[in-house]
Amino acid sequence: MDKINGKDLIKEFSLEDALENEGREISLSACVHKVKKMGGFAFVILRTGRYLIQTVYSPDDCADSIDGIKEGCFAAVTGIVKKDERAYNGIELTLKTIKLLHNPGNDYPLHVSARKLGCSLDVNLDNRSVSLRNPAEKAIFKFQEGVVSAFREFMLKNDFTEIHTPKIVAQGAEGGANIFRLEYFEQEAFLNQSPQFYKQAAVAFFDRVFEIAPVYRAEKHSTSRHLNEYIGLDFEMGFINDMYDVMNMETAMLRYMMSYLKENYAREIAVLGADIPEVTEIPCIRFEDAVTLIKGSKAKNKFDLEPEDEVFLCNWAKENHGTEFIFVTHFPSSKPPFYAMNDKDDPRTACKFDLLFRGLEITTGGQRIHDYNEQIEKMKAQGLDPDDFRSYLESHKYGLPPHGGLGIGLERLVMKLIGADNVRRTSMFPRDLNRLLP
Amino acid sequence: MDKINGKDLIKEFSLEDALENEGREISLSACVHKVKKMGGFAFVILRTGRYLIQTVYSPDDCADSIDGIKEGCFAAVTGIVKKDERAYNGIELTLKTIKLLHNPGNDYPLHVSARKLGCSLDVNLDNRSVSLRNPAEKAIFKFQEGVVSAFREFMLKNDFTEIHTPKIVAQGAEGGANIFRLEYFEQEAFLNQSPQFYKQAAVAFFDRVFEIAPVYRAEKHSTSRHLNEYIGLDFEMGFINDMYDVMNMETAMLRYMMSYLKENYAREIAVLGADIPEVTEIPCIRFEDAVTLIKGSKAKNKFDLEPEDEVFLCNWAKENHGTEFIFVTHFPSSKPPFYAMNDKDDPRTACKFDLLFRGLEITTGGQRIHDYNEQIEKMKAQGLDPDDFRSYLESHKYGLPPHGGLGIGLERLVMKLIGADNVRRTSMFPRDLNRLLP
Repeated sequence: MDKINGKDLIKEFSLEDALENEGREISLSACVHKVKKMGGFAFVILRTGRYLIQTVYSPDDCADSIDGIKEGCFAAVTGIVKKDERAYNGIELTLKTIKLLHNPGNDYPLHVSARKLGCSLDVNLDNRSVSLRNPAEKAIFKFQEGVVSAFREFMLKNDFTEIHTPKIVAQGAEGGANIFRLEYFEQEAFLNQSPQFYKQAAVAFFDRVFEIAPVYRAEKHSTSRHLNEYIGLDFEMGFINDMYDVMNMETAMLRYMMSYLKENYAREIAVLGADIPEVTEIPCIRFEDAVTLIKGSKAKNKFDLEPEDEVFLCNWAKENHGTEFIFVTHFPSSKPPFYAMNDKDDPRTACKFDLLFRGLEITTGGQRIHDYNEQIEKMKAQGLDPDDFRSYLESHKYGLPPHGGLGIGLERLVMKLIGADNVRRTSMFPRDLNRLLP
Repeated sequence: MDKINGKDLIKEFSLEDALENEGREISLSACVHKVKKMGGFAFVILRTGRYLIQTVYSPDDCADSIDGIKEGCFAAVTGIVKKDERAYNGIELTLKTIKLLHNPGNDYPLHVSARKLGCSLDVNLDNRSVSLRNPAEKAIFKFQEGVVSAFREFMLKNDFTEIHTPKIVAQGAEGGANIFRLEYFEQEAFLNQSPQFYKQAAVAFFDRVFEIAPVYRAEKHSTSRHLNEYIGLDFEMGFINDMYDVMNMETAMLRYMMSYLKENYAREIAVLGADIPEVTEIPCIRFEDAVTLIKGSKAKNKFDLEPEDEVFLCNWAKENHGTEFIFVTHFPSSKPPFYAMNDKDDPRTACKFDLLFRGLEITTGGQRIHDYNEQIEKMKAQGLDPDDFRSYLESHKYGLPPHGGLGIGLERLVMKLIGADNVRRTSMFPRDLNRLLP
């Protein structure tokens, strides 16, 4: 253990270490999750950062009294390790000492120690600093850590460089009205809708880049799928042959992620009942064919997929290909984004794709235009003025390799992996039309 | 290698793989960094995401002509690997084929292939998408990746949970005037000045948390040390005995980071001439004693350190303790932040510290107030209305363990490690009073 200034670093409780010390005394500080008084003894369940730990109090073994020790207090204990399959995580401590560290003096307004909170989503979110103390609620965000770690680890292993790009910008990457305006000293500024412009610029010098950062969309929707601030898992890669290289990179990343989660977050998977999919070959369908498939009753929109179309296509993939993922490719080229390369064989379509998973779009990506003149032409074709994009176009002017990339919505991916009914459940402190607090 | 849909994932050039294949043919796609035509042959220097690779063209060996291949083009080559100590990274390729992938058709406005760009900072930043193609410029951000990776890896190894908290908030964590205002639908909102409130809330359920994310300060300073948007490396830990546990964690983290950088980013350290410090014991000095030490001519401010004081104290630490780091502790308790715990032995001072490194504050941290009533009292003592902080105080009301933490400014730390003269050099796309583009 590191000694700093002659002192040991203080350590968080380690379940692995504890299980290797059966019969020995260990010490641990934690929140008191629950106290169950029995005849002559008591169970004091402790809640550490990741685990519930059952301790048994008996006045015969313990030097201290548990009077005043109750749910919500913080305590420091010592106890003898006993393996017990019936206890949480297979371990029980026989208490030797228990000291109160802090008693907040207020009872929780929610059933923190229940297996599920059992309150409405609004009550959960209004009381977020309490609701997240519930083991099932906080497991969502431990699991989310795993999703982020897996993404990052895969990217780094594949020679992507991690970058950090500004969120305060002079211009949104996706255009349109769904952008937050900001007072930036004497200027007007915006919150970026995606790191698109910057990750494209970075491909010119790092070849492959990724970023994990907040993304802003001022959408006035109040749906179960939209957040106004969310975490984007973005990457962009140079020297591709076509957008299939990007789709293959995503497929490999997802495959890596799922086994990473099973290996490192099995406890959270169990608590959440998360259904971790097999990532085999992911079928692809062209947008035009998807519309034909859906047609008859349901395809209302000729330029994009509606939520019910996404559900339909995922069901179709499941029935016909035995997978819960499906790539939809070749959206109409008349549609944004302006940086999507048109298909050389069929310029009515763009080399753009969505990835749908369990009925929801979790990714948009594609091959981008790298040629300056081609980009100018497409801007004009979409009614945009290239002069408005002078700074962005510097990258094209001085050269970009053929490249493509994608963005994944972290909260949507987690939502679908754990089977949550609302994306707000997978944002620690969600922002929506009405919610700025906590 | 992963096969996806029956295809190999496309790979970025690997120097290690290449060096193991002496005498064999490898292929590689990259930007053309420089072409040096000699009598009858030519050096074509390629620039990959991380390396410069020297290739030798001779019409006898190469099936293709290099007519039209020039600086700034993108090309795909095959060549025979030859180890050569005189070449960049000890490797040279004898070209067998070279195909032009893309010719942007415009010459760089800067000397990208020079060892140093040799332009003013403003010209560098105005042409950022070009200037970052210079190997010494981009090495800054590869090195930055290492700093971030080391921080994260240390945190994860020490059982901190990675979290993501909102940047759009109803209230800034640090108060004061240096906050950006935002139109959030019908409400007024702000860009967060630090994740302070949220990481404290998260300590109640995860014990230890960290976040790597943008932080916003609407400071109207135009100095070499300030950015209006920067990356905060933040952590917060529960169950501490005192702020020295936090300072020890930072010391251990920095020690880990420096050896991580030397192990994994030696190439960038060499290119940048970065001076990686030994992190031994870091001396501590109380603010009051620091002021006495500086006194006579220089200590103008009785409540905080001025830039020249930070330089003075670092020089003092170097001379008297042989280290480039110094902790300054026990700032006046009357001074923000309101969440800093007052010292029980000397309530005129707060359990707050700064870490200075090479003449610059790179961290502020401390022990926070966990008790609800104590927090209310301190708010009142600082003239704040606790009603304005109702949402924040929910965490205290329902209990927080004794805890503390800190925030490190990524760009400042990198600036000092590489010896840059301006923090804008260590932000990929910096934001300052006048700069919103690129």
